[in-house]
Amino acid sequence: MRADVYWTVAEAEEAGVGSAVTAVVIDVLRATSTIVAALASGARAIYPTASPEEAIKLAQSLGRDDTLLCGERRGLKVEGYDLGNSPREFTPDVVAGKRLVMSTTNGTRALQAVQHADRVLVASFLNLGAAAAAVSQAPAVAVVCAGREDLFSLDDAVCAGALLRRLEAAVKGGIAFNDAGRAAMALASATRVDASFLAETDAGRALAEIGLEADLEACAQVDRHGIVPEMHERMIRVTDVAGD
Amino acid sequence: MRADVYWTVAEAEEAGVGSAVTAVVIDVLRATSTIVAALASGARAIYPTASPEEAIKLAQSLGRDDTLLCGERRGLKVEGYDLGNSPREFTPDVVAGKRLVMSTTNGTRALQAVQHADRVLVASFLNLGAAAAAVSQAPAVAVVCAGREDLFSLDDAVCAGALLRRLEAAVKGGIAFNDAGRAAMALASATRVDASFLAETDAGRALAEIGLEADLEACAQVDRHGIVPEMHERMIRVTDVAGD
Repeated sequence: MRADVYWTVAEAEEAGVGSAVTAVVIDVLRATSTIVAALASGARAIYPTASPEEAIKLAQSLGRDDTLLCGERRGLKVEGYDLGNSPREFTPDVVAGKRLVMSTTNGTRALQAVQHADRVLVASFLNLGAAAAAVSQAPAVAVVCAGREDLFSLDDAVCAGALLRRLEAAVKGGIAFNDAGRAAMALASATRVDASFLAETDAGRALAEIGLEADLEACAQVDRHGIVPEMHERMIRVTDVAGD
Repeated sequence: MRADVYWTVAEAEEAGVGSAVTAVVIDVLRATSTIVAALASGARAIYPTASPEEAIKLAQSLGRDDTLLCGERRGLKVEGYDLGNSPREFTPDVVAGKRLVMSTTNGTRALQAVQHADRVLVASFLNLGAAAAAVSQAPAVAVVCAGREDLFSLDDAVCAGALLRRLEAAVKGGIAFNDAGRAAMALASATRVDASFLAETDAGRALAEIGLEADLEACAQVDRHGIVPEMHERMIRVTDVAGD
């Protein structure tokens, strides 16, 4: 197996994630944590969009009755939206059975960058073990960190490394990693994942500054959910782990 | 002090390295190792250029008598050049008193990306301690890794982290790091720097494939030289450590 990590959407675009690759998108703070939480709470499907304007149009075309608009700009809920981008908001009583149109800054860009991959899966600390199991049969894996505006994000890097460590333990035969993959695993080995770790990252500090430090605890819960979100034609739903 | 690391030229351009910042450019395999070796061997000045064509023009305008053309494309010496990009070639008998026009793929791009910084210094494992001393009085430091075609390079990352660890030991008062700076330091802590380490990186493997594995040993010699190259108006010379 080959497993490559890209720290930013720009790196993934530079390298090119091809059609023979299983892509795993990670945006710990907070898009992919929120996607996992929402689907675990029974949301029917999530539609990521690149802009708030596109989100509003799509929600209108889907029908507003069972569709919720959610997402953030600069970390805060977009004016007129039903929900922001905090996993704590996506509880079963709010999202079960609903379709969610989600606009986020970096997470959506990362998902769109890999849309031509063989499979596009979504991972976070919340579903680490399930995500590792889901990619363990793939010949090639590309882990794409959303990063922050095309800069490296330590929270995503440690999550990518933790995923690869699980994968290495599960896969028979060796895995060939790129430099970033090896660095991610070293960073994961050196890190205890909890809210304090997230609070010291650039993204964690930015969330604390706007009063959302409670999200850090919600995003640090390793293996809370056993599901793997998968994107097909710009729609994200829970997939079977084996990929059937 | 503030100290930020950028893994690639693209990241440095994205963040913007401003005029109040001391920039340190790192391209372990091999541009900045070669620049340090060449100046330590008595080369008078080095002129980095973006393309082989620009290099040939510049060498002609400088006068070919005491000017050497050096550099690589895909790791190998450019046709018609005097020297390649291996630090082992830049011995005193070859380069002492000479001006070197140097064309390299990623190193030159990195130097040009930070040309508006307050100071532009050049670091590698070969001059780690001297480079750390040279930036210890700066209010803000940006360490720009050349990377490989805008992808993360583990050799550059560990060198950046080793530089920051020296800096942290030398500077009174705290240093505020970005996520990449903290990751670089963790990677440096986990790594023993030698030719074997470099041989397992993506760039080291590529050099070995074209028969240049002996360069790895030459680039892994920590603190071999006590000089710091500095770029002024696109010319690199040895600077006084205090920055006078």
